[in-house]
Amino acid sequence: MGDSVGIGIVGLGTIGTGVAKLLHRNASVIEQRLGQPLRVVRIADLDTQTDRGIDLGGIRFDDDSDGLIADPEVDIVVELIGGYGVARDLTLRAIANGKHVVTANKALLALHGRELFEAAAQAGVDIAFEASVGGGIPILRSMREGLSANRIESVHGIVNGTTNYVLSEMEETGEAFEVVLKRAQDLGYAEADPSFDVDGIDAAHKLTLLAAMAFGADLTYEDIPTEGIRGLVPMDYEAASQFGLKIKMLAIAKLRDEDGVERIEARVHPTMIPAESLLAKVDGAMNAVAVHGDAVGPTLFYGAGAGELPTASAVVADLMEVAREIRRGSAGRVAPLSYVPEALVKKPLVPLGELEARCYLVLTVLDRPGVLGRIASAFGDHEISIESVLQKARGRETAVPIVLLTHPAREAAVRKALAVVDAMPEVTAPSRMLRIEEDL
Amino acid sequence: MGDSVGIGIVGLGTIGTGVAKLLHRNASVIEQRLGQPLRVVRIADLDTQTDRGIDLGGIRFDDDSDGLIADPEVDIVVELIGGYGVARDLTLRAIANGKHVVTANKALLALHGRELFEAAAQAGVDIAFEASVGGGIPILRSMREGLSANRIESVHGIVNGTTNYVLSEMEETGEAFEVVLKRAQDLGYAEADPSFDVDGIDAAHKLTLLAAMAFGADLTYEDIPTEGIRGLVPMDYEAASQFGLKIKMLAIAKLRDEDGVERIEARVHPTMIPAESLLAKVDGAMNAVAVHGDAVGPTLFYGAGAGELPTASAVVADLMEVAREIRRGSAGRVAPLSYVPEALVKKPLVPLGELEARCYLVLTVLDRPGVLGRIASAFGDHEISIESVLQKARGRETAVPIVLLTHPAREAAVRKALAVVDAMPEVTAPSRMLRIEEDL
Repeated sequence: MGDSVGIGIVGLGTIGTGVAKLLHRNASVIEQRLGQPLRVVRIADLDTQTDRGIDLGGIRFDDDSDGLIADPEVDIVVELIGGYGVARDLTLRAIANGKHVVTANKALLALHGRELFEAAAQAGVDIAFEASVGGGIPILRSMREGLSANRIESVHGIVNGTTNYVLSEMEETGEAFEVVLKRAQDLGYAEADPSFDVDGIDAAHKLTLLAAMAFGADLTYEDIPTEGIRGLVPMDYEAASQFGLKIKMLAIAKLRDEDGVERIEARVHPTMIPAESLLAKVDGAMNAVAVHGDAVGPTLFYGAGAGELPTASAVVADLMEVAREIRRGSAGRVAPLSYVPEALVKKPLVPLGELEARCYLVLTVLDRPGVLGRIASAFGDHEISIESVLQKARGRETAVPIVLLTHPAREAAVRKALAVVDAMPEVTAPSRMLRIEEDL
Repeated sequence: MGDSVGIGIVGLGTIGTGVAKLLHRNASVIEQRLGQPLRVVRIADLDTQTDRGIDLGGIRFDDDSDGLIADPEVDIVVELIGGYGVARDLTLRAIANGKHVVTANKALLALHGRELFEAAAQAGVDIAFEASVGGGIPILRSMREGLSANRIESVHGIVNGTTNYVLSEMEETGEAFEVVLKRAQDLGYAEADPSFDVDGIDAAHKLTLLAAMAFGADLTYEDIPTEGIRGLVPMDYEAASQFGLKIKMLAIAKLRDEDGVERIEARVHPTMIPAESLLAKVDGAMNAVAVHGDAVGPTLFYGAGAGELPTASAVVADLMEVAREIRRGSAGRVAPLSYVPEALVKKPLVPLGELEARCYLVLTVLDRPGVLGRIASAFGDHEISIESVLQKARGRETAVPIVLLTHPAREAAVRKALAVVDAMPEVTAPSRMLRIEEDL
């Protein structure tokens, strides 16, 4: 079959090792599909000593990433070093050298995507990044090429395997967040510093890519309202179950078109969703993205969101795609973020206060005479009606949690009512709120 | 932006109308993604009188399909006439005229795919066919481009919306097949002649495409063992529920690699699957395909499998893809069936007798002294062990159904045991069997 395409891998950590492994193991099926072989010619990593358990025969392996991105044998650079600074610099220089780039680095793309895509377009090379969202799930390709005829109306994604694992475990075992997180860390499912995952930063990075793909919206990552899962307690799961709901950490983006003026709802937070929805069945470290298009209706894409070989699956698929573009001289054939650059524009975000949804509220209250009536009045004064109340115990001396489920209400009104409630002397801790998403 | 690409639609039925509607309605977002407009220049249908409720202003509309496929204004022909004979002839002539072809016709591709793809490759044009399997779900693109780095191990698809609707209704209402089918026909979910759907023919057509994509297996449609859903009765649902199972009509393909010799399991039949699996949650007319790859692990793709706009969503996505290829002169960039033609080869099918699975069996028995013992012996003699027995009533005078769940057993042995059982004088009707799939 055809000539081989030369691959250079920068960063031989978990994913880089998976990529090398997969290219070796599935070389035959890759060539049967592509019509030509992919060959790793060079790998660069600062650590050249650790044994990764893979055969690097015939591959130049050193710590010279500068040499790699200038090597004429290298057609495609796989950037797997992570982070923003060095990765940005390396990627720009690789592009300047005329190299195509495949990356799994959502943080890099969320912060510097526009600059990188512009540089690639000017240089006539591709940047492929399927592995950056949803691991092995071909969600970006599906949105960009499979659902391209649709006006996308909403995206709801479980896009962080660590938080989904922690929440699934909390639900199953009834254990506290800290206990489950510790176990996830011991098992390698969570980082020593889990903030990136559990505070929603990683999901927000991915959401900027999803929102661009879905709506042509050029969002600034820092503007996306992001809430983590640290505040969840086992009682939340019990209550959710009683209401026929489940709790999932979701990255949500929706299009609001009011008389032709488009605004974007974009947010990352733990969310209650109907227990019978498909997303609610996505457990453990798995990922799924539900996309609703005006023509196709509801769709869902499910698979492993992380891990050595699932992520390598997406990276190598990108390598095959770029190899086809090289062969046909068709780099830049598809707009990387689904919209051509001039159609990818800033769109205003809908403030959270304008959201309208049922809400799950937890109040911490000393149950003294009249307090429940005053709480009810606070909600009534803000035109919020209550659908259900759960109170596990009475607490005249010690505060007890009271769980409220509201009918659909505007978030600004709910926040105001909660401010009134939280100012009451019988309310001993700040109230908590979880949003409920229904149409999944 | 760029020049427009000219579209000609042959066949203005439900899907054709949806395609025209969607190209009109979403013209703006299509151009924002593609960088150029798609323009319907010509439509041909034998019926030029019926009002389809769409604006055909500026579009030449007549019954001259020969003229359409020769029209220099037409770059891409959308073949939506269905069937094998006329569609094959028209497609071949369109290709000979240098036209790219987009089709939703799985029957055509299942029977004449090799001939059509060869003709297209020789002519340097594309045949795109995402809409032929899974309606609006971009499942073919995902397998061909998204999961291309994997050795695919199995595919389990709910790929016929009519049968899934009928089975979902039977489960929900407890009504008989004939009753639900009649209602599905009244609602337009099933054809007046439902055989194509309920006997599994449509699903088998689609499975030939999925098996080619997954394994590079060139299967002959007629060789695929296919069983329909006419024989299911409400009791099967009750029993399934008691066993924690659900009944779905599945198209199944698996790779068996024994010492490097590859054989393919391919079959279409109603199947019992774990009630907690994602596929079991796919209800109504929705479709889903679960694909297991060696690197990515389990994945699932869910969405509407039929209908005017969901199918049009896939057709128009293909039009956009082909338009990109036209612009870049990169037709034939991707092997249409995922494997390059020389790697797409005949692979032997695994005979059903070699399958090994738990089985659900329904025997119809007069419960006379000793008969249950003799039935048990028949299974024991064939080394089949029984996991559960359900008997709703005793029937000395009238035969009653006895439901058996076996432990994993070879199908050939089960068939032999059933032959022995069915020959007993107390067994008054042929026994029935449903296969159980576990790993979903």
